[in-house]
Amino acid sequence: MITQISPSGSMELLSPLEVERLKASSTSQLYRLYRNCSLAVLNSGSKTDSSKETLERYKSFDINVLRRERGVKIELINPPEEAIVDGEIIRGIQEHLFSVLRDIVYVSDRYQNNAYINLTNSQHLTHVVFDILRNAGALHSQSDPNMVVCWGGHSISDIEHQYTLEVGHALGLRQLNVCTGCGPGAMEGPMRGAAISHAKQRVRNGRYLGLTEPSIIAAEPPNSIVNELVILPDIEKRLEAFVRVAHGIIIFPGGVGTAEELLYLLGILLNEENAKQPFPIVLTGPVESAEYFHQIDQFVGATLGPEAQNKYRIVIGDPSLAARVLKESMPDVRAYRKTIGDAYHFNWSLKIEPEFQLPFEPTHDNIAALNLHKDQNKAALAADLRRAFSAIVAGNVKAEGMKAIEKHGPFEINGDPMLMKMLDKLLRAFVEQQRMKLPGSDYVPCYTVRA
Amino acid sequence: MITQISPSGSMELLSPLEVERLKASSTSQLYRLYRNCSLAVLNSGSKTDSSKETLERYKSFDINVLRRERGVKIELINPPEEAIVDGEIIRGIQEHLFSVLRDIVYVSDRYQNNAYINLTNSQHLTHVVFDILRNAGALHSQSDPNMVVCWGGHSISDIEHQYTLEVGHALGLRQLNVCTGCGPGAMEGPMRGAAISHAKQRVRNGRYLGLTEPSIIAAEPPNSIVNELVILPDIEKRLEAFVRVAHGIIIFPGGVGTAEELLYLLGILLNEENAKQPFPIVLTGPVESAEYFHQIDQFVGATLGPEAQNKYRIVIGDPSLAARVLKESMPDVRAYRKTIGDAYHFNWSLKIEPEFQLPFEPTHDNIAALNLHKDQNKAALAADLRRAFSAIVAGNVKAEGMKAIEKHGPFEINGDPMLMKMLDKLLRAFVEQQRMKLPGSDYVPCYTVRA
Amino acid sequence: MITQISPSGSMELLSPLEVERLKASSTSQLYRLYRNCSLAVLNSGSKTDSSKETLERYKSFDINVLRRERGVKIELINPPEEAIVDGEIIRGIQEHLFSVLRDIVYVSDRYQNNAYINLTNSQHLTHVVFDILRNAGALHSQSDPNMVVCWGGHSISDIEHQYTLEVGHALGLRQLNVCTGCGPGAMEGPMRGAAISHAKQRVRNGRYLGLTEPSIIAAEPPNSIVNELVILPDIEKRLEAFVRVAHGIIIFPGGVGTAEELLYLLGILLNEENAKQPFPIVLTGPVESAEYFHQIDQFVGATLGPEAQNKYRIVIGDPSLAARVLKESMPDVRAYRKTIGDAYHFNWSLKIEPEFQLPFEPTHDNIAALNLHKDQNKAALAADLRRAFSAIVAGNVKAEGMKAIEKHGPFEINGDPMLMKMLDKLLRAFVEQQRMKLPGSDYVPCYTVRA
Amino acid sequence: MITQISPSGSMELLSPLEVERLKASSTSQLYRLYRNCSLAVLNSGSKTDSSKETLERYKSFDINVLRRERGVKIELINPPEEAIVDGEIIRGIQEHLFSVLRDIVYVSDRYQNNAYINLTNSQHLTHVVFDILRNAGALHSQSDPNMVVCWGGHSISDIEHQYTLEVGHALGLRQLNVCTGCGPGAMEGPMRGAAISHAKQRVRNGRYLGLTEPSIIAAEPPNSIVNELVILPDIEKRLEAFVRVAHGIIIFPGGVGTAEELLYLLGILLNEENAKQPFPIVLTGPVESAEYFHQIDQFVGATLGPEAQNKYRIVIGDPSLAARVLKESMPDVRAYRKTIGDAYHFNWSLKIEPEFQLPFEPTHDNIAALNLHKDQNKAALAADLRRAFSAIVAGNVKAEGMKAIEKHGPFEINGDPMLMKMLDKLLRAFVEQQRMKLPGSDYVPCYTVRA
Repeated sequence: MITQISPSGSMELLSPLEVERLKASSTSQLYRLYRNCSLAVLNSGSKTDSSKETLERYKSFDINVLRRERGVKIELINPPEEAIVDGEIIRGIQEHLFSVLRDIVYVSDRYQNNAYINLTNSQHLTHVVFDILRNAGALHSQSDPNMVVCWGGHSISDIEHQYTLEVGHALGLRQLNVCTGCGPGAMEGPMRGAAISHAKQRVRNGRYLGLTEPSIIAAEPPNSIVNELVILPDIEKRLEAFVRVAHGIIIFPGGVGTAEELLYLLGILLNEENAKQPFPIVLTGPVESAEYFHQIDQFVGATLGPEAQNKYRIVIGDPSLAARVLKESMPDVRAYRKTIGDAYHFNWSLKIEPEFQLPFEPTHDNIAALNLHKDQNKAALAADLRRAFSAIVAGNVKAEGMKAIEKHGPFEINGDPMLMKMLDKLLRAFVEQQRMKLPGSDYVPCYTVRA
Repeated sequence: MITQISPSGSMELLSPLEVERLKASSTSQLYRLYRNCSLAVLNSGSKTDSSKETLERYKSFDINVLRRERGVKIELINPPEEAIVDGEIIRGIQEHLFSVLRDIVYVSDRYQNNAYINLTNSQHLTHVVFDILRNAGALHSQSDPNMVVCWGGHSISDIEHQYTLEVGHALGLRQLNVCTGCGPGAMEGPMRGAAISHAKQRVRNGRYLGLTEPSIIAAEPPNSIVNELVILPDIEKRLEAFVRVAHGIIIFPGGVGTAEELLYLLGILLNEENAKQPFPIVLTGPVESAEYFHQIDQFVGATLGPEAQNKYRIVIGDPSLAARVLKESMPDVRAYRKTIGDAYHFNWSLKIEPEFQLPFEPTHDNIAALNLHKDQNKAALAADLRRAFSAIVAGNVKAEGMKAIEKHGPFEINGDPMLMKMLDKLLRAFVEQQRMKLPGSDYVPCYTVRA
Repeated sequence: MITQISPSGSMELLSPLEVERLKASSTSQLYRLYRNCSLAVLNSGSKTDSSKETLERYKSFDINVLRRERGVKIELINPPEEAIVDGEIIRGIQEHLFSVLRDIVYVSDRYQNNAYINLTNSQHLTHVVFDILRNAGALHSQSDPNMVVCWGGHSISDIEHQYTLEVGHALGLRQLNVCTGCGPGAMEGPMRGAAISHAKQRVRNGRYLGLTEPSIIAAEPPNSIVNELVILPDIEKRLEAFVRVAHGIIIFPGGVGTAEELLYLLGILLNEENAKQPFPIVLTGPVESAEYFHQIDQFVGATLGPEAQNKYRIVIGDPSLAARVLKESMPDVRAYRKTIGDAYHFNWSLKIEPEFQLPFEPTHDNIAALNLHKDQNKAALAADLRRAFSAIVAGNVKAEGMKAIEKHGPFEINGDPMLMKMLDKLLRAFVEQQRMKLPGSDYVPCYTVRA
Repeated sequence: MITQISPSGSMELLSPLEVERLKASSTSQLYRLYRNCSLAVLNSGSKTDSSKETLERYKSFDINVLRRERGVKIELINPPEEAIVDGEIIRGIQEHLFSVLRDIVYVSDRYQNNAYINLTNSQHLTHVVFDILRNAGALHSQSDPNMVVCWGGHSISDIEHQYTLEVGHALGLRQLNVCTGCGPGAMEGPMRGAAISHAKQRVRNGRYLGLTEPSIIAAEPPNSIVNELVILPDIEKRLEAFVRVAHGIIIFPGGVGTAEELLYLLGILLNEENAKQPFPIVLTGPVESAEYFHQIDQFVGATLGPEAQNKYRIVIGDPSLAARVLKESMPDVRAYRKTIGDAYHFNWSLKIEPEFQLPFEPTHDNIAALNLHKDQNKAALAADLRRAFSAIVAGNVKAEGMKAIEKHGPFEINGDPMLMKMLDKLLRAFVEQQRMKLPGSDYVPCYTVRA
């Protein structure tokens, strides 16, 4: 089956020159990535977290960028049939397909050939994050602070999923918007909940902003509620995008990915220059997940100290309270931004050090070289702990990471003995609680911890 | 707790004179009705189908209409707390509260004092239905045919509910809107399903039109998806509203209320003058409900004959097909209306005889007097069968009906022996399948069938 | 030539019953009025102020209300060809035609048959004014005070017209809207000026509200800028509509009609109960018109005293200042309405006595009976002076009045000798300055003043 | 006086990096140009055509680009006071100021540093024109063909101006939009006329697109109706923008600039590859201007032949007809574009040879080198004739040109004797008819024609 699709959004108006470059790029080195991300989007709402499985199931799928006198078209060959209704592609998926084209092909071309942009300079990296979000139309300069980023696992229990839905509902009742990593589980629940309560509150322009990156999109395809999709080039830019668009963050139960996000966030907020930033953070889950947060909290206390623990509030079994804590912080966020003259739609004044911005490649060597000792600055320790968790995410679900493990065996994480012990304990708990992979598959650890 | 609420919609602009009349009406004979319907709306989304239970739970609830220089306000005393978020009423509920004020108090005043309107004249009755819908802003003159009325029980199994949701999803994917009786069960499922797929299709103005009437609203409070609520004065006007705004009808499994609706519809379509009306009707449910439709179909065949059976199509276990049948009929509906010069938003040309319009009061005497014999015009028989089912609905869930049963014992339904046998069989099946009341309570029949 | 026209606005949705009544009304006693007002609207923008001339020029013009299954249509026979472009009626004129149908036929029917409305009761009369404006969609409940009513002559010099245009431009630059009597001259200039400056300020929803009445519309057809047209039933309701929608008033040079308006306004503001109303009034014109305002001011001083003179400010030759005075008063108007809880879109709290509300029929007898003596309440004197000017307007340009004069000779106005002398002087000045009729025709006075 | 102005449109969201570059560019080589164009925009609506005069009058005017945490601001020092109302800048002028910043500074920076763009390649030049229009939001992909480009002199008689206004009115009545060079005279009339008739037709999104270029904007500041302003980098790109956004062109009386435009247009349409393009062109003016068009037509006939004459239609004294010819061609334009798959908003398929795209610098040497002989391809001759007229425009009103003339004396234009004779005759007629400069000043020719 072959379908041709017209562009929407910012790709609607392209010149032949631009389409030519797009065609050229999309058929060259970027092609695999482009095809696979498009497939993930077409597969939106499906229940697997194995990108391998998806890729194999749709081996015959293909995608082409066509040049038409009026602009660009996308041609789909054998797309998943759920994406098509009575011969027409679902409009939300059409938009997401062009988000992929925009963010994978167009943006990549833009930065490869820009003489000004220095991708090792902190200010330039922030500019790139801003530019990608702006180009995606994800920065709304006219709204008051109302964007709540929700983090949490893609593989969570039904009780936890129901809880995330209720928190989302409570956020939406308070007319807050939701941004997540855009996959299933704790990324889907809050969006779905908010969508329902937005309808009750007659909020017509509710935002369900999904931020993803090429290596994760296939394992965690956008859920069906996402109405703005942005694909950042790598995990560090995605994390920076999260914290700069957020007016507050809720963290649900999750696995190593969620731990990575929490450490990233704490590492930044421990920076002296961010001491005055009002940045509400709530860790929340159903009573059944109380133990989980206890473990996380202990780990943070033991590694980064009470100063880090003071940055968040733990709320157990009370969705309304979780939402209210966020809602009630919005005036502070607004007042602070106004005072220092910062934008509401992008937190320019948040200081992010290069160690949190520069991409970390999870090779065996890089992982072995991480400095996981306590005799250093807390923020620096947080940065390397973040990288350790990031590596495990890669080993668990990302194509590159899985290949490396297959070839060289598990990643070796080593450091301070006491710290390694705590880390091991936390990771074992994740495994036991089935937070590493969707239930059903046995989890074989992709790492060993060594003191 | 006391809350004051500002008006929305057509009640935003009232003169002091009008507010004075409203206050006067709302504190007099209409008051109970007005209070109880308001309570039902505030209770939207709750899980009981017993209006008695609701009324008893919120005994201390009260409502007042206040006159302000700028217009009207509503004062709520001790409203259900789910309706209030952080001290503010949920906007959707605010709108519904003013729909109640508009339809119960304002409209009633309007017709009581209109010298022109003759409430026994067929054309005038249709005008009233039109006027109420227009006054509610429920007639959109600019859209093409796309309104699917969904009928079905408020008490259905989880499997059936899931199925109604999937049909709604399939309708929304095809950019169709949904109108139901606005309560739970088969009235909620299609709306919720369509809401999700409308979001996927980026349909921003999806319509979830709920048509109810005062005696049913407490037992079946509007579900939370309804974004347009209209309260017709009685069951016959509600039925007329359904068939005149519908461009097609889907009937899910249900109990006596659904049977009443089907017979009303067939009675009208059997009228010679409606022979050319394209009016797609689909009876549909999951495979588990196949038997249910078999029984209904047999009953229709035996009482109204194959001509009536030809008016609908039965679709089992195929939500997409059900939606497609409707979607594919829309061009015919459009073409027919265009040819004869009829409106798309209101089916003026559908002929409805007074026997389907004049309110039927379900007293023991009236029920005993029904002519349930086969030696008459099929449409007339359908009209009286419709009334019989209507009476049982009243006996089951309406305050008035329940009181009458308490006092005088079950309604007696009698007629042609064979017909009575079929009726008895059908009703027994409803009881067995728990379609009479929400599961959990034992059903005591409010009728006896006698040949 | 025959053209059929579809409805717009509130006439889009009518039931057959309503169309039937409309047809019946429009072919009976109201027909002449309806036809002539429609003709005036079709003739919009033309340069004559003689309704007679217009009526004679388009003798073959006819109009019919047609009943269609979907609602109403209007059929035009031999309409002025300027109203039609390439076979299609100009959309603004189409809207105005349905405003005429709405206000002349539909509204009339509504009040003739409403048991509640007592047209001699002050509160009821105000309700009627409100109801007509609301029905026309002319009450915008969401805007802050910004409506400036501009009064002035339809027959003014080029310099004066240019000046009204500049004042309108200065109002529009300040994002104020304009309401006038909707004819040519000082009713057109401010609207045209504001339309241009609204465009400069990117005000997309600029309002150019024209309030007229059946006896004046033919002589002063709506100018082409008017985008909301409301036809009040008589001159007193039109005047009440003006002062209740106004947040401030500008008075340009004019003739007896303008004098009538000024006396009406002062009569109301002299009422004790309106003492606290912030109600900015500016009398303004080019330097060439300074003498005119001097005369008016003297007349007011001599008849109503300095208290009345204090109600307005005279601004000569400074359009920006005139606009700024209005603009700077808006916060006071807003604050006052807010404090007492009044609406911004309709000044409910302005007290208007019945003597300013009840229609005055300008017969020879009624005019002779006016009490034009100084030994009475100032407001009462203002009321009768207003009536005297009103009579002269009728004698000058209204069909009925002109017929009465033809038959019985000029109206006789008598009263206090000094007051009569002042009146005579003022009227002579109007004649000399050609403010009675459009230049070109000799003016034969329709009145005699007698002490 | 100092005023700070917030950005609007596409400049609303800039990163600190971008603002830094903007500040740097705006204070360097581009600064003069930027300042002067901004001044022209602030001076919008003024009556002089001497950029020198304007510049001298506002010597103390200055403009700065400021960096704010949230983005960019513009600071104005001593701006013309007509641009400011009660301390606030007029919104339309605010938009235009940011159009200048966008098109002069931002765009210039963009192309200076783009490795891909080759400014001597025809396809690339077209891409630049497209990119600038797109970046300005001037390409509306959803509309049907409706854009009429109007060309004509900035210095025309009152009768001619009134006529352009009437043609604009007739275009607007037919719901067509207007694009002009955005200055006074024949660039203002059609826009003003269309603005009025758009209001009558309730067209809310009427477009008044002004295309200008840095060297002309000061002499012909945008008139007050323009609601979209785009500044192309040079005259050739501006001409290309005109013909690619046009769905038809109307040419009013004008001087050498208008002649330049006509020759450019004919030169392109004489290209074989454009033979099938439906491209309606009307030359029109009041009866008083009949002679003017006769002269132009003769000149075209004599130089480019009847084939060129066949490309346009001359309409004298009939505004409705002129508009109707355009309106009636729109379906052909639409059908052609649809058939070949071209866009409606940008005429990609129109072939424009490099000789019409590459900037022509009007130096004495370049002018002397023009090939103005008949023994060549008509299109090539048109191209060089276009350049000759372009040079005279520069000598008349552009700063650079005027300086060159001051220094080296008049331009010498030479070529084929007969052709030179015709040219001389035409230019003399322009002088006599005061089409070279605004009346009041004596015209001293900036050229000599030599056979």
